[in-house]
Amino acid sequence: MTRVGIVGATGYAGAELVRLLAGHPEVNLTFLTSRQYAGVPFHEIYPAFTGIVDLTCEAYEPDAVCDKSDIVFTALPHQLPMSIIPELVARGKKIIDLSADFRFSNPDAYEAAYMQHTAIELLDRSVYGLSEVFADRIKEAAIIGNPGCYPTSVLLPLIPLIKAGLILPETIIADSKSGVSGAGRGLSVNSLYSEVTESFKAYKVAVHRHEPEMEEVLSGISDTPVNITFVPHLLPMNRGMETTIYAGLSKDFTDNDIYDTLAGYYSGRPFIRISKAGHPPDTRNVRGTNYCDIGFVVDRDHRRLILMSVIDNLVKGAAGQAVQNMNIMLGLDEKTGLDMVPFPL
Amino acid sequence: MTRVGIVGATGYAGAELVRLLAGHPEVNLTFLTSRQYAGVPFHEIYPAFTGIVDLTCEAYEPDAVCDKSDIVFTALPHQLPMSIIPELVARGKKIIDLSADFRFSNPDAYEAAYMQHTAIELLDRSVYGLSEVFADRIKEAAIIGNPGCYPTSVLLPLIPLIKAGLILPETIIADSKSGVSGAGRGLSVNSLYSEVTESFKAYKVAVHRHEPEMEEVLSGISDTPVNITFVPHLLPMNRGMETTIYAGLSKDFTDNDIYDTLAGYYSGRPFIRISKAGHPPDTRNVRGTNYCDIGFVVDRDHRRLILMSVIDNLVKGAAGQAVQNMNIMLGLDEKTGLDMVPFPL
Amino acid sequence: MTRVGIVGATGYAGAELVRLLAGHPEVNLTFLTSRQYAGVPFHEIYPAFTGIVDLTCEAYEPDAVCDKSDIVFTALPHQLPMSIIPELVARGKKIIDLSADFRFSNPDAYEAAYMQHTAIELLDRSVYGLSEVFADRIKEAAIIGNPGCYPTSVLLPLIPLIKAGLILPETIIADSKSGVSGAGRGLSVNSLYSEVTESFKAYKVAVHRHEPEMEEVLSGISDTPVNITFVPHLLPMNRGMETTIYAGLSKDFTDNDIYDTLAGYYSGRPFIRISKAGHPPDTRNVRGTNYCDIGFVVDRDHRRLILMSVIDNLVKGAAGQAVQNMNIMLGLDEKTGLDMVPFPL
Amino acid sequence: MTRVGIVGATGYAGAELVRLLAGHPEVNLTFLTSRQYAGVPFHEIYPAFTGIVDLTCEAYEPDAVCDKSDIVFTALPHQLPMSIIPELVARGKKIIDLSADFRFSNPDAYEAAYMQHTAIELLDRSVYGLSEVFADRIKEAAIIGNPGCYPTSVLLPLIPLIKAGLILPETIIADSKSGVSGAGRGLSVNSLYSEVTESFKAYKVAVHRHEPEMEEVLSGISDTPVNITFVPHLLPMNRGMETTIYAGLSKDFTDNDIYDTLAGYYSGRPFIRISKAGHPPDTRNVRGTNYCDIGFVVDRDHRRLILMSVIDNLVKGAAGQAVQNMNIMLGLDEKTGLDMVPFPL
Repeated sequence: MTRVGIVGATGYAGAELVRLLAGHPEVNLTFLTSRQYAGVPFHEIYPAFTGIVDLTCEAYEPDAVCDKSDIVFTALPHQLPMSIIPELVARGKKIIDLSADFRFSNPDAYEAAYMQHTAIELLDRSVYGLSEVFADRIKEAAIIGNPGCYPTSVLLPLIPLIKAGLILPETIIADSKSGVSGAGRGLSVNSLYSEVTESFKAYKVAVHRHEPEMEEVLSGISDTPVNITFVPHLLPMNRGMETTIYAGLSKDFTDNDIYDTLAGYYSGRPFIRISKAGHPPDTRNVRGTNYCDIGFVVDRDHRRLILMSVIDNLVKGAAGQAVQNMNIMLGLDEKTGLDMVPFPL
Repeated sequence: MTRVGIVGATGYAGAELVRLLAGHPEVNLTFLTSRQYAGVPFHEIYPAFTGIVDLTCEAYEPDAVCDKSDIVFTALPHQLPMSIIPELVARGKKIIDLSADFRFSNPDAYEAAYMQHTAIELLDRSVYGLSEVFADRIKEAAIIGNPGCYPTSVLLPLIPLIKAGLILPETIIADSKSGVSGAGRGLSVNSLYSEVTESFKAYKVAVHRHEPEMEEVLSGISDTPVNITFVPHLLPMNRGMETTIYAGLSKDFTDNDIYDTLAGYYSGRPFIRISKAGHPPDTRNVRGTNYCDIGFVVDRDHRRLILMSVIDNLVKGAAGQAVQNMNIMLGLDEKTGLDMVPFPL
Repeated sequence: MTRVGIVGATGYAGAELVRLLAGHPEVNLTFLTSRQYAGVPFHEIYPAFTGIVDLTCEAYEPDAVCDKSDIVFTALPHQLPMSIIPELVARGKKIIDLSADFRFSNPDAYEAAYMQHTAIELLDRSVYGLSEVFADRIKEAAIIGNPGCYPTSVLLPLIPLIKAGLILPETIIADSKSGVSGAGRGLSVNSLYSEVTESFKAYKVAVHRHEPEMEEVLSGISDTPVNITFVPHLLPMNRGMETTIYAGLSKDFTDNDIYDTLAGYYSGRPFIRISKAGHPPDTRNVRGTNYCDIGFVVDRDHRRLILMSVIDNLVKGAAGQAVQNMNIMLGLDEKTGLDMVPFPL
Repeated sequence: MTRVGIVGATGYAGAELVRLLAGHPEVNLTFLTSRQYAGVPFHEIYPAFTGIVDLTCEAYEPDAVCDKSDIVFTALPHQLPMSIIPELVARGKKIIDLSADFRFSNPDAYEAAYMQHTAIELLDRSVYGLSEVFADRIKEAAIIGNPGCYPTSVLLPLIPLIKAGLILPETIIADSKSGVSGAGRGLSVNSLYSEVTESFKAYKVAVHRHEPEMEEVLSGISDTPVNITFVPHLLPMNRGMETTIYAGLSKDFTDNDIYDTLAGYYSGRPFIRISKAGHPPDTRNVRGTNYCDIGFVVDRDHRRLILMSVIDNLVKGAAGQAVQNMNIMLGLDEKTGLDMVPFPL
């Protein structure tokens, strides 16, 4: 059994990692760290886990972490991971980091969006963890920069079509909508129930930090700088993210052209489900699971493709993809520990 | 006091008309009709109105309707209004119709989207009731074709900018999100609580019947056929609609250019509130009211404007705009009976 | 016009006072104070009020407050009101306090539930502001201790029946359920959307501080110490409170006995709506309004009465009852400024 | 592998059975019947199951059902099961019925609450499927009358305390609150999103048909006729049920007495989790799982016990307990196929 632990286990992404790793048949969850809750049994913070997870949260101690784990998941705000990961890597641990710190290969892009990068020397040992796209490199990486939720929902439908030359990268508009769990467990008036329910609005319009993350990947895929328009919105719901993408087609492709390109690219990948034209995906069909459902409509009047994707922002958009990446690193079947049957209700 | 009545009072738009007209200081609400609930006191169907509205629902009878009213609101599914309105107009009543039957000036466009039109001779006595745009003609009309909710949210932000030549009509993409009350009180699995909550999805992608309604108006405004891309989505909330519009700019306009054009056009119009650049509007700020809040961001990288509007789909998107149109017809202050203070919680 | 101001205007009860007082035809809202937002226009904190309320929040200054107001509403956490109200009263202002500080006539009861009372000398100039029950004394009071939301929902259905001797005070069990806006705008993990939605639970079982508040009033009404069982629960909704009360009947009363006692006591009181037996009230019928709807069922097998009441916790449970009390103090019709038509959707 | 099938697979309880049985390692799900959707692939009705469940719904045919199954789950409205089960039992099938038809051992009680019983001769071969209480008899039964959701939530906390003589059966009041999925997928205005959200109310006060079901079981447990007061309420949420029970104690028991009695009775039962005094359970901690969490507070002033239980109404309140009963019948570990880790968000 591989020994795994979570640094930063009490935020929403961390707790979701606990859920998935506690039920994973090939790993042993050996520690949970939390600055705020050191010394508190995890099931006192999340009573749902009573009788299931017996670990008590600990303060972060590199020696203890290294003694007890083979793979370390870090679910911390950006900046903290790049301060602790170098030591862990030096001591031979594999890292799956859910922050932005190791998502960019170009440190300038990171620094423009976030802050000074303090572990640049590790960037060429880290791989962007979009599982279906970069599996070969994920297998070998020391560090996985696990993708953001918005980039996952935008990149998965786009990449096959860009690679195949069907859409024009410079025309891409992504209109995304996220459930509020994406904002995490931190205290903010904007996350209060009374402020979120019966409310819908855009935010960080065209200035969200996930946009350069997408653009770096898309530019790499298309071998040309890609600059998109990205507008995130906040949904009055907990889990779930939908992205509707508008992109110009390079010529008059048919529904079959689109379907075949998507289905062909993701052939054999269990978590990507492609619908025939005209069947928009619904967030509730992926809730609690690692699926990404993709649908599309060709808008022939404008030679434009409308692509729609849905994920659970905490699973395929965070903890689930992290576990999928771990499975890939360990040579396991990708679905190990992630094969829960969804419940649409 | 003007005498008004509602044909089809027990659906959601009808009940919202009851709410607004019951509190309106210049009219007397004299009858409510309902096929399903004839003979039932209205407050037994909607107990919220106990002690406030004492009317009992009646079956529709043209003589009774004409005896008791000066203005008739029709809140029925399309097809029914065009079958009863000709007689009412012939007997001198003014009509405010919330269906699609009198929204199109071109019957072919109506027939392509809906069905055969059986009262074409009245189309030149009807006016599209987008209050802020067509007030002059609304004053004189025999019939108001009250706008759909989606068209209201799309047209109000676009029209000033198209008129002023700032945006390129052929580039318009409208990504709309609606609360489920827009689907009405009819029984459908898709409207059940368990199917809507924690769910978000697109529907009728690029084939919604509100799209030709918008296109007819935009074409008239811009004096050229306009064809847009329109994608509606269903929100897990009750009231509220947000539209995010993407449109190419005809040149490099500044934030001030956009703001001044919008604010100038709607100067003195009490229900339109324009935000400075970078302040996206939130549906909860207009809930229960007739406001339309509009915000924008200029995406300079793509010489593209991102416009956002929010309305309450049952108020400015239906019953509120209908009452506003009545106020205009009667020469009253537009805000009469519509000046409720919103409550954001 | 009476000049009124709000000390503590940016919490949820304060903002609800702004909503109601801004639309009140007989008062002039002259200032809003906020420690956290001093210097910030109110409509920047609550954009819903854009174009409606132009006041900027100020720091609390007794001289400014006294200069600008005849009646002062205090919407602050307990302890603060009793520190500032003595000076305001000394300078001739009438006070309507939404905290617990002036709800108890017996300071020991306050101190057992809260903390040391620092303005005991004012308790005999303050009146418990349950409008329908204590209107005569409210008229004359210097200070109104505006009732808590739970006590309002529990006391209004019980008082007529206790006064008339129909129910046995020692048998009362009150099972209450509150929307989360009752917890206010303060930051707490328990108020986050992700923690509240799809969640329901009891809290502070039999130890909530509103219980002694109810018991003091019930003891006064029944002339004997009354000790009840009170269990509050948190609902996954924003506004609304329901209380189901179980109480032994003193003999085999009929439905009519119960109805007549309730309807008789509240005859002529516009905000209390009594249903016939077997029609449980629904929170959505009172949302945004000052109504308290009351229903009941006689459980003959156990000679037990089941009483149910609903209020909007922010209106009749807080700001609305405060305005109603102001109307009573000013000799206005109770409904002035509170006659909004509810909207059940 | 045991072959199992579901008669009535497309309602909410049926779909939940599909979810649980599709992921169950010891059974093979061989058919799904649906009157309304015969011929339609199940994943077209519930797209969440795309790639997971490949069965197509069939019309009910007893021969086909008998050929393909060892155990049959019936998830139909009452009356239908008692018309088809006799033939299935005669042909040697074991039945787990989720309706009320086989829950009562006394047909008079069934007939008083529902309708004439047409399979009385089978009642002594059926067992009430409250898994933790009647496991011994469940093992041997031909038919399981799977408990209602409300009775499950009421009986599990009460039975140990009644059996041990700690509470007085004649004093029991159960105040229950249910998510709306309990009303099923049938079309009803009361189940529409717009009617349920931001709404809370009691219904069927003291006349719900689950009350005699509870009373028959409690009477059997306590060897004396038990008559309780039961009030159900509808929650604005999808899944989850909470019951708060008030019951007189037979003497002054301590917290430890209560805890030990509950924990002792359920010792070794994996799905019952008992909290220490003062920790009310929360529905979200059991969502999607077969757990029943129980908490309590002793109200010493009234020598009264306050018991609280939470379940997922579709799992422990329906499909999950049905699968648990199947496990017991098959001699499997109770948790087989039911050991999913809950997710509290």
